[in-house]
Amino acid sequence: MDRRTQILHTAGRLFSQRGYHATSMRDIARALDLQGGSLYTHIESKEEVLWEIVNRAADRFLAHATSIDPDLPPRERLKALVRGHLTVIAQELEHATVFFHEWKFLSPELQERIKARRDAYEAHFREAIESGVQRGEFKVEDPKIAALFVLSALNWTYQWLRPEGPLDLEALTERYTALVLRALGGEA
Amino acid sequence: MDRRTQILHTAGRLFSQRGYHATSMRDIARALDLQGGSLYTHIESKEEVLWEIVNRAADRFLAHATSIDPDLPPRERLKALVRGHLTVIAQELEHATVFFHEWKFLSPELQERIKARRDAYEAHFREAIESGVQRGEFKVEDPKIAALFVLSALNWTYQWLRPEGPLDLEALTERYTALVLRALGGEA
Repeated sequence: MDRRTQILHTAGRLFSQRGYHATSMRDIARALDLQGGSLYTHIESKEEVLWEIVNRAADRFLAHATSIDPDLPPRERLKALVRGHLTVIAQELEHATVFFHEWKFLSPELQERIKARRDAYEAHFREAIESGVQRGEFKVEDPKIAALFVLSALNWTYQWLRPEGPLDLEALTERYTALVLRALGGEA
Repeated sequence: MDRRTQILHTAGRLFSQRGYHATSMRDIARALDLQGGSLYTHIESKEEVLWEIVNRAADRFLAHATSIDPDLPPRERLKALVRGHLTVIAQELEHATVFFHEWKFLSPELQERIKARRDAYEAHFREAIESGVQRGEFKVEDPKIAALFVLSALNWTYQWLRPEGPLDLEALTERYTALVLRALGGEA
Protein backbone atom coordinates (compact mmCIF):
# COMPACT_ATOMS: atom_id res chain seq x y z
CA MET A 1 0.00 0.00 0.00
CA ASP A 2 1.54 3.33 -0.97
CA ARG A 3 1.66 6.17 1.50
CA ARG A 4 -1.27 8.06 -0.07
CA THR A 5 -3.47 4.98 0.10
CA GLN A 6 -2.44 4.46 3.73
CA ILE A 7 -3.43 8.03 4.51
CA LEU A 8 -6.85 7.58 2.91
CA HIS A 9 -7.32 4.30 4.73
CA THR A 10 -6.48 5.75 8.13
CA ALA A 11 -8.38 8.99 7.55
CA GLY A 12 -11.41 6.95 6.42
CA ARG A 13 -11.35 5.04 9.68
CA LEU A 14 -11.04 8.18 11.80
CA PHE A 15 -13.66 10.16 9.84
CA SER A 16 -16.12 7.27 10.02
CA GLN A 17 -15.63 6.88 13.77
CA ARG A 18 -15.45 10.49 14.93
CA GLY A 19 -16.67 12.50 11.97
CA TYR A 20 -14.74 14.80 9.66
CA HIS A 21 -14.85 17.86 11.88
CA ALA A 22 -13.66 16.09 14.97
CA THR A 23 -10.60 14.65 13.18
CA SER A 24 -7.56 16.87 12.70
CA MET A 25 -4.67 16.43 10.30
CA ARG A 26 -2.60 15.92 13.44
CA ASP A 27 -4.82 12.98 14.45
CA ILE A 28 -4.30 11.40 11.03
CA ALA A 29 -0.53 11.94 11.20
CA ARG A 30 -0.40 10.48 14.72
CA ALA A 31 -2.38 7.39 13.74
CA LEU A 32 0.12 6.83 10.91
CA ASP A 33 3.12 7.52 13.13
CA LEU A 34 4.10 10.41 10.88
CA GLN A 35 5.34 13.88 11.72
CA GLY A 36 2.52 16.37 11.16
CA GLY A 37 4.54 18.23 8.54
CA SER A 38 5.38 15.18 6.44
CA LEU A 39 1.67 14.45 5.93
CA TYR A 40 1.53 17.60 3.80
CA THR A 41 4.07 16.22 1.35
CA HIS A 42 1.42 13.66 0.38
CA ILE A 43 -1.79 15.58 0.76
CA GLU A 44 -2.63 19.26 0.59
CA SER A 45 -5.48 19.62 3.04
CA LYS A 46 -8.02 17.72 5.11
CA GLU A 47 -10.66 18.55 2.53
CA GLU A 48 -8.55 16.92 -0.16
CA VAL A 49 -8.53 13.73 1.92
CA LEU A 50 -12.32 13.89 2.33
CA TRP A 51 -12.79 14.50 -1.38
CA GLU A 52 -10.59 11.54 -2.34
CA ILE A 53 -12.45 9.22 0.02
CA VAL A 54 -15.90 10.33 -1.10
CA ASN A 55 -15.04 10.42 -4.79
CA ARG A 56 -13.36 7.01 -4.74
CA ALA A 57 -16.42 5.55 -3.02
CA ALA A 58 -18.57 7.07 -5.78
CA ASP A 59 -16.20 5.46 -8.30
CA ARG A 60 -16.75 2.07 -6.73
CA PHE A 61 -20.54 2.30 -6.71
CA LEU A 62 -20.64 3.60 -10.29
CA ALA A 63 -18.13 1.06 -11.58
CA HIS A 64 -20.40 -1.75 -10.39
CA ALA A 65 -23.50 -0.20 -11.92
CA THR A 66 -21.96 0.60 -15.30
CA SER A 67 -20.46 -2.89 -15.56
CA ILE A 68 -23.97 -4.37 -15.70
CA ASP A 69 -25.17 -5.21 -19.20
CA PRO A 70 -28.19 -2.92 -19.83
CA ASP A 71 -29.64 -5.58 -22.12
CA LEU A 72 -30.10 -8.00 -19.26
CA PRO A 73 -33.73 -8.57 -18.26
CA PRO A 74 -34.68 -5.83 -15.72
CA ARG A 75 -35.06 -8.39 -12.97
CA GLU A 76 -31.45 -9.52 -13.49
CA ARG A 77 -30.24 -5.93 -13.69
CA LEU A 78 -31.90 -5.13 -10.38
CA LYS A 79 -30.40 -8.20 -8.77
CA ALA A 80 -26.94 -7.19 -9.97
CA LEU A 81 -27.46 -3.61 -8.73
CA VAL A 82 -28.49 -4.84 -5.26
CA ARG A 83 -25.53 -7.21 -5.12
CA GLY A 84 -23.07 -4.55 -6.27
CA HIS A 85 -24.31 -1.99 -3.77
CA LEU A 86 -24.16 -4.33 -0.78
CA THR A 87 -20.75 -5.59 -1.88
CA VAL A 88 -19.25 -2.09 -1.98
CA ILE A 89 -20.68 -1.27 1.44
CA ALA A 90 -19.47 -4.54 2.96
CA GLN A 91 -16.00 -4.28 1.43
CA GLU A 92 -15.50 -0.60 2.16
CA LEU A 93 -17.63 0.02 5.19
CA GLU A 94 -15.53 2.89 6.50
CA HIS A 95 -15.26 4.73 3.22
CA ALA A 96 -18.93 4.13 2.47
CA THR A 97 -19.79 5.58 5.89
CA VAL A 98 -17.76 8.70 5.08
CA PHE A 99 -19.40 8.86 1.65
CA PHE A 100 -22.89 8.77 3.17
CA HIS A 101 -22.22 10.87 6.25
CA GLU A 102 -19.51 13.40 5.66
CA TRP A 103 -19.89 14.42 2.02
CA LYS A 104 -21.91 17.46 3.11
CA PHE A 105 -18.76 18.96 4.59
CA LEU A 106 -17.22 19.28 1.13
CA SER A 107 -17.20 22.73 -0.48
CA PRO A 108 -20.34 23.58 -2.47
CA GLU A 109 -18.57 22.94 -5.81
CA LEU A 110 -17.37 19.51 -4.76
CA GLN A 111 -20.80 18.70 -3.30
CA GLU A 112 -22.31 19.46 -6.71
CA ARG A 113 -19.88 17.06 -8.36
CA ILE A 114 -20.84 14.32 -5.93
CA LYS A 115 -24.55 15.04 -6.34
CA ALA A 116 -24.18 14.65 -10.09
CA ARG A 117 -22.53 11.27 -9.60
CA ARG A 118 -25.22 10.18 -7.13
CA ASP A 119 -27.90 11.20 -9.61
CA ALA A 120 -26.19 9.18 -12.33
CA TYR A 121 -26.09 6.20 -10.00
CA GLU A 122 -29.72 6.56 -9.00
CA ALA A 123 -30.62 6.68 -12.72
CA HIS A 124 -29.31 3.12 -13.12
CA PHE A 125 -31.87 1.94 -10.58
CA ARG A 126 -34.70 4.05 -11.97
CA GLU A 127 -34.03 2.93 -15.55
CA ALA A 128 -33.93 -0.73 -14.62
CA ILE A 129 -37.26 -0.29 -12.80
CA GLU A 130 -38.84 1.66 -15.68
CA SER A 131 -37.72 -0.91 -18.17
CA GLY A 132 -39.16 -3.67 -15.96
CA VAL A 133 -42.48 -1.84 -15.84
CA GLN A 134 -42.51 -1.47 -19.63
CA ARG A 135 -41.83 -5.16 -20.12
CA GLY A 136 -44.46 -6.15 -17.58
CA GLU A 137 -41.89 -7.66 -15.19
CA PHE A 138 -42.54 -5.08 -12.46
CA LYS A 139 -45.65 -3.33 -11.26
CA VAL A 140 -44.82 0.08 -9.81
CA GLU A 141 -46.88 3.29 -9.84
CA ASP A 142 -43.96 5.66 -9.47
CA PRO A 143 -40.53 4.41 -10.62
CA LYS A 144 -38.75 7.43 -9.13
CA ILE A 145 -40.10 6.77 -5.63
CA ALA A 146 -39.53 3.05 -6.08
CA ALA A 147 -35.87 3.72 -6.94
CA LEU A 148 -35.52 5.96 -3.88
CA PHE A 149 -37.15 3.28 -1.75
CA VAL A 150 -34.74 0.60 -2.95
CA LEU A 151 -31.70 2.85 -2.61
CA SER A 152 -32.79 3.93 0.86
CA ALA A 153 -33.13 0.33 1.99
CA LEU A 154 -29.66 -0.37 0.56
CA ASN A 155 -27.89 2.75 1.79
CA TRP A 156 -28.92 2.47 5.41
CA THR A 157 -27.33 -0.98 5.67
CA TYR A 158 -24.01 0.79 6.37
CA GLN A 159 -25.46 1.40 9.83
CA TRP A 160 -25.92 -2.25 10.72
CA LEU A 161 -24.17 -4.41 8.11
CA ARG A 162 -21.16 -6.07 9.70
CA PRO A 163 -19.30 -8.26 7.22
CA GLU A 164 -18.04 -10.38 10.10
CA GLY A 165 -21.55 -10.66 11.55
CA PRO A 166 -23.74 -13.76 11.70
CA LEU A 167 -25.33 -13.11 8.29
CA ASP A 168 -22.77 -13.16 5.51
CA LEU A 169 -22.92 -10.94 2.47
CA GLU A 170 -24.18 -13.75 0.28
CA ALA A 171 -27.14 -14.56 2.54
CA LEU A 172 -27.96 -10.90 3.08
CA THR A 173 -27.87 -10.23 -0.67
CA GLU A 174 -30.24 -13.10 -1.27
CA ARG A 175 -32.75 -11.87 1.30
CA TYR A 176 -32.51 -8.26 0.22
CA THR A 177 -32.95 -9.22 -3.43
CA ALA A 178 -36.11 -11.15 -2.62
CA LEU A 179 -37.54 -8.21 -0.67
CA VAL A 180 -36.64 -5.70 -3.40
CA LEU A 181 -38.05 -7.77 -6.26
CA ARG A 182 -41.28 -8.38 -4.40
CA ALA A 183 -41.59 -4.68 -3.48
CA LEU A 184 -41.41 -3.92 -7.20
CA GLY A 185 -44.17 -6.40 -7.91
CA GLY A 186 -41.78 -8.86 -9.54
CA GLU A 187 -41.13 -12.48 -8.75
CA ALA A 188 -38.58 -12.99 -6.01
CA MET B 1 -42.00 28.54 23.12
CA ASP B 2 -40.00 28.55 26.36
CA ARG B 3 -36.31 29.33 26.34
CA ARG B 4 -35.25 25.70 26.71
CA THR B 5 -37.38 24.63 23.74
CA GLN B 6 -35.93 27.50 21.71
CA ILE B 7 -32.44 26.33 22.54
CA LEU B 8 -33.22 22.78 21.45
CA HIS B 9 -34.84 24.05 18.28
CA THR B 10 -31.87 26.22 17.31
CA ALA B 11 -29.29 23.65 18.34
CA GLY B 12 -31.16 21.02 16.32
CA ARG B 13 -30.94 23.18 13.23
CA LEU B 14 -27.23 23.88 13.70
CA PHE B 15 -26.33 20.28 14.57
CA SER B 16 -28.26 18.97 11.56
CA GLN B 17 -26.57 21.44 9.19
CA ARG B 18 -22.98 21.41 10.45
CA GLY B 19 -22.80 18.42 12.74
CA TYR B 20 -22.47 18.30 16.50
CA HIS B 21 -18.72 18.73 16.64
CA ALA B 22 -18.62 21.73 14.36
CA THR B 23 -21.21 23.59 16.46
CA SER B 24 -20.06 25.35 19.63
CA MET B 25 -22.16 26.55 22.54
CA ARG B 26 -21.14 30.03 21.42
CA ASP B 27 -22.68 29.38 17.97
CA ILE B 28 -25.93 28.34 19.64
CA ALA B 29 -25.93 31.41 21.89
CA ARG B 30 -25.21 33.70 18.94
CA ALA B 31 -28.01 32.22 16.83
CA LEU B 32 -30.36 32.89 19.75
CA ASP B 33 -28.98 36.38 20.36
CA LEU B 34 -28.00 35.35 23.86
CA GLN B 35 -24.86 36.08 25.83
CA GLY B 36 -22.72 32.92 25.94
CA GLY B 37 -22.93 32.79 29.72
CA SER B 38 -26.70 33.04 29.94
CA LEU B 39 -27.08 29.88 27.83
CA TYR B 40 -25.65 27.99 30.78
CA THR B 41 -28.48 29.06 33.04
CA HIS B 42 -30.76 26.92 30.85
CA ILE B 43 -28.53 24.06 29.85
CA GLU B 44 -25.50 22.48 31.43
CA SER B 45 -23.45 21.37 28.44
CA LYS B 46 -23.51 20.79 24.71
CA GLU B 47 -23.87 17.07 25.37
CA GLU B 48 -26.99 17.74 27.41
CA VAL B 49 -28.48 19.55 24.39
CA LEU B 50 -27.60 16.63 22.13
CA TRP B 51 -29.08 14.15 24.57
CA GLU B 52 -32.35 16.09 24.84
CA ILE B 53 -32.71 16.29 21.08
CA VAL B 54 -31.92 12.63 20.49
CA ASN B 55 -34.00 11.37 23.38
CA ARG B 56 -37.02 13.49 22.48
CA ALA B 57 -36.83 12.21 18.90
CA ALA B 58 -36.81 8.66 20.29
CA ASP B 59 -39.86 9.63 22.38
CA ARG B 60 -41.71 10.73 19.28
CA PHE B 61 -40.97 7.58 17.31
CA LEU B 62 -41.86 5.33 20.24
CA ALA B 63 -45.02 7.26 21.10
CA HIS B 64 -46.34 6.60 17.61
CA ALA B 65 -45.48 2.92 17.70
CA THR B 66 -46.91 2.23 21.15
CA SER B 67 -50.13 4.07 20.31
CA ILE B 68 -50.93 1.43 17.68
CA ASP B 69 -53.39 -1.23 18.82
CA PRO B 70 -51.43 -4.52 18.76
CA ASP B 71 -54.68 -6.36 18.03
CA LEU B 72 -55.02 -4.71 14.65
CA PRO B 73 -54.43 -7.02 11.71
CA PRO B 74 -50.66 -7.06 10.98
CA ARG B 75 -51.18 -5.36 7.65
CA GLU B 76 -52.89 -2.43 9.38
CA ARG B 77 -50.23 -2.33 12.08
CA LEU B 78 -47.51 -2.12 9.46
CA LYS B 79 -49.35 0.64 7.62
CA ALA B 80 -49.67 2.63 10.84
CA LEU B 81 -45.98 2.08 11.65
CA VAL B 82 -44.92 3.33 8.21
CA ARG B 83 -47.21 6.34 8.48
CA GLY B 84 -45.99 7.20 11.99
CA HIS B 85 -42.34 6.94 11.05
CA LEU B 86 -42.62 9.14 7.97
CA THR B 87 -44.75 11.64 9.90
CA VAL B 88 -42.14 12.07 12.65
CA ILE B 89 -39.37 12.52 10.07
CA ALA B 90 -41.38 15.03 8.04
CA GLN B 91 -42.50 17.00 11.07
CA GLU B 92 -39.14 17.01 12.82
CA LEU B 93 -36.66 16.74 10.03
CA GLU B 94 -33.87 18.55 11.85
CA HIS B 95 -34.23 16.63 15.09
CA ALA B 96 -34.61 13.35 13.22
CA THR B 97 -31.41 14.14 11.31
CA VAL B 98 -29.58 14.70 14.60
CA PHE B 99 -31.11 11.51 15.99
CA PHE B 100 -29.85 9.46 13.05
CA HIS B 101 -26.52 11.21 12.52
CA GLU B 102 -25.15 12.58 15.73
CA TRP B 103 -26.25 10.13 18.41
CA LYS B 104 -22.88 8.38 18.18
CA PHE B 105 -21.28 11.43 19.76
CA LEU B 106 -23.14 10.78 23.02
CA SER B 107 -21.21 9.21 25.87
CA PRO B 108 -21.17 5.39 25.86
CA GLU B 109 -23.79 5.22 28.66
CA LEU B 110 -26.19 7.51 26.84
CA GLN B 111 -25.57 5.65 23.60
CA GLU B 112 -26.61 2.45 25.35
CA ARG B 113 -29.85 4.06 26.50
CA ILE B 114 -30.63 5.16 22.96
CA LYS B 115 -29.73 1.74 21.55
CA ALA B 116 -32.18 0.14 23.97
CA ARG B 117 -34.92 2.49 22.78
CA ARG B 118 -34.08 1.82 19.13
CA ASP B 119 -34.23 -1.91 19.79
CA ALA B 120 -37.64 -1.52 21.42
CA TYR B 121 -38.81 0.45 18.40
CA GLU B 122 -37.44 -2.11 15.94
CA ALA B 123 -39.27 -4.82 17.89
CA HIS B 124 -42.63 -3.20 17.01
CA PHE B 125 -41.82 -3.71 13.33
CA ARG B 126 -40.48 -7.22 13.79
CA GLU B 127 -43.45 -8.34 15.86
CA ALA B 128 -45.96 -6.96 13.38
CA ILE B 129 -44.13 -8.83 10.61
CA GLU B 130 -43.90 -12.06 12.61
CA SER B 131 -47.55 -11.91 13.48
CA GLY B 132 -48.38 -11.32 9.79
CA VAL B 133 -46.36 -14.39 8.87
CA GLN B 134 -48.15 -16.49 11.49
CA ARG B 135 -51.55 -15.41 10.22
CA GLY B 136 -50.58 -15.99 6.61
CA GLU B 137 -50.86 -12.31 5.68
CA PHE B 138 -47.16 -11.95 4.94
CA LYS B 139 -44.59 -14.23 3.36
CA VAL B 140 -41.12 -13.55 4.68
CA GLU B 141 -38.20 -15.93 5.25
CA ASP B 142 -36.46 -13.86 7.87
CA PRO B 143 -38.62 -11.38 9.85
CA LYS B 144 -35.56 -9.80 11.48
CA ILE B 145 -33.97 -8.90 8.13
CA ALA B 146 -37.36 -7.88 6.76
CA ALA B 147 -37.80 -5.46 9.70
CA LEU B 148 -34.32 -4.05 9.11
CA PHE B 149 -35.10 -3.68 5.41
CA VAL B 150 -38.31 -1.76 6.11
CA LEU B 151 -36.71 0.44 8.76
CA SER B 152 -33.73 1.13 6.49
CA ALA B 153 -36.02 2.24 3.66
CA LEU B 154 -37.88 4.47 6.14
CA ASN B 155 -34.88 5.92 7.97
CA TRP B 156 -32.98 7.03 4.93
CA THR B 157 -35.89 9.23 3.82
CA TYR B 158 -34.52 11.94 6.14
CA GLN B 159 -31.90 12.45 3.43
CA TRP B 160 -34.34 13.31 0.67
CA LEU B 161 -37.79 13.85 2.19
CA ARG B 162 -38.69 17.53 1.96
CA PRO B 163 -42.15 18.20 3.41
CA GLU B 164 -42.46 21.24 1.15
CA GLY B 165 -41.38 19.16 -1.88
CA PRO B 166 -43.53 18.10 -4.83
CA LEU B 167 -44.67 14.88 -3.16
CA ASP B 168 -46.60 15.51 0.02
CA LEU B 169 -46.44 13.31 3.07
CA GLU B 170 -49.80 11.71 2.31
CA ALA B 171 -48.80 10.67 -1.22
CA LEU B 172 -45.36 9.48 -0.08
CA THR B 173 -46.91 7.43 2.74
CA GLU B 174 -49.26 5.78 0.29
CA ARG B 175 -46.47 4.81 -2.11
CA TYR B 176 -44.15 3.68 0.62
CA THR B 177 -46.89 1.59 2.23
CA ALA B 178 -47.60 -0.16 -1.06
CA LEU B 179 -43.89 -0.94 -1.55
CA VAL B 180 -43.47 -2.18 2.03
CA LEU B 181 -46.55 -4.42 2.00
CA ARG B 182 -45.58 -5.94 -1.32
CA ALA B 183 -42.00 -6.51 -0.13
CA LEU B 184 -43.45 -8.49 2.77
CA GLY B 185 -45.48 -10.60 0.39
CA GLY B 186 -48.73 -8.98 1.48
CA GLU B 187 -51.36 -7.25 -0.59
CA ALA B 188 -50.62 -3.58 -1.23
